[in-house]
Amino acid sequence: MNTDNLLKQISFIKEIDKLKYIQRKTKLFNSDRNENDAEHSWHLAMMAIVLAEHSDRPVDILKVVKMVLIHDIVEIDAGDTFIYDTVKNHTNTDEELEAAKRIFGLLPSEQAEEYIDIWKEFEDGLTDEAKFARSMDRLEPLLQNTSNNGGTWAEFNVDYQKVYDKKKVIKNGSATIWNYAENLLNESVEKGILKKMTE
Amino acid sequence: MNTDNLLKQISFIKEIDKLKYIQRKTKLFNSDRNENDAEHSWHLAMMAIVLAEHSDRPVDILKVVKMVLIHDIVEIDAGDTFIYDTVKNHTNTDEELEAAKRIFGLLPSEQAEEYIDIWKEFEDGLTDEAKFARSMDRLEPLLQNTSNNGGTWAEFNVDYQKVYDKKKVIKNGSATIWNYAENLLNESVEKGILKKMTE
Repeated sequence: MNTDNLLKQISFIKEIDKLKYIQRKTKLFNSDRNENDAEHSWHLAMMAIVLAEHSDRPVDILKVVKMVLIHDIVEIDAGDTFIYDTVKNHTNTDEELEAAKRIFGLLPSEQAEEYIDIWKEFEDGLTDEAKFARSMDRLEPLLQNTSNNGGTWAEFNVDYQKVYDKKKVIKNGSATIWNYAENLLNESVEKGILKKMTE
Repeated sequence: MNTDNLLKQISFIKEIDKLKYIQRKTKLFNSDRNENDAEHSWHLAMMAIVLAEHSDRPVDILKVVKMVLIHDIVEIDAGDTFIYDTVKNHTNTDEELEAAKRIFGLLPSEQAEEYIDIWKEFEDGLTDEAKFARSMDRLEPLLQNTSNNGGTWAEFNVDYQKVYDKKKVIKNGSATIWNYAENLLNESVEKGILKKMTE
């Protein structure tokens, strides 16, 4: 029985409840209710297990699932950064690293290291697992925005090229899903819910 | 490229968004905001990966994670049944089975079968993976209720024995976690947030 580990793990489990309060810009499907980070992370985990066959390369799917489950936990301290924010860059800010150290640091040290490493691996996006996990993270809001008449693209006046540049990350994980996503972007332009240019 | 599979999977991914609207009776930690099923499922998945070492028997943790991620999806059609409901039994109702067939049935047939089987395995609670997954499902609201001054126990006047009978399922998955949970129940009685008897 390792009670010391258990107590640390329980304190982590309590702390991450706060993820349920972090609001994303994106809305639920066919909805005007904002999604929170816990819901988003659950949905990405479901997508990862359901879509695993489309990864271009074999992936350790448990690792992908861990990545998407934990990828936003740093936002408990650092807050959600909108992907199309032109001022604040989302990736690997010092603030996020400090958050990762504090929050995962509640766990027993070996686990803390494991999760900080998995989080960094996701952020760096270089391994096959990280590439597939990141393609899930880009696909979900694409599906949501198309269901919401343009969603955040319309709300924040984001044009096709900016969206395309963010979404093409999907290609690193899956040619099949990228093909689907590209079609969805083109259809969105045709429907007028994604503009080719902002003046 | 298997586009046919992908389209079915995308329709499933859109459908399960509805889990974010299913409200549980239990509240978030130190909060009066109800938890929804998607948040709950994310939290159980996190708990499963973080607490895996405490399983009494070796488990396929990916399977446990799949179980807890999908275990409430049937509630999209069947609704949430309160665990202490004395009229409606939670487990394996016909309504839930129909829901499983409809919702997982959106997936390609092999996957549909896989997830219906995993859901049934969780409900039956007989395998080591199901036992550990179910112990997670019982532990989370215990932690929430103790953080909320008795939470649903106080709100719905549920006494110690009824709670104990539900929580002892944790013992089937992990002696260490059960030991912790039992202490928490005793402490709750001492604090007066869980009553030994209702008159």
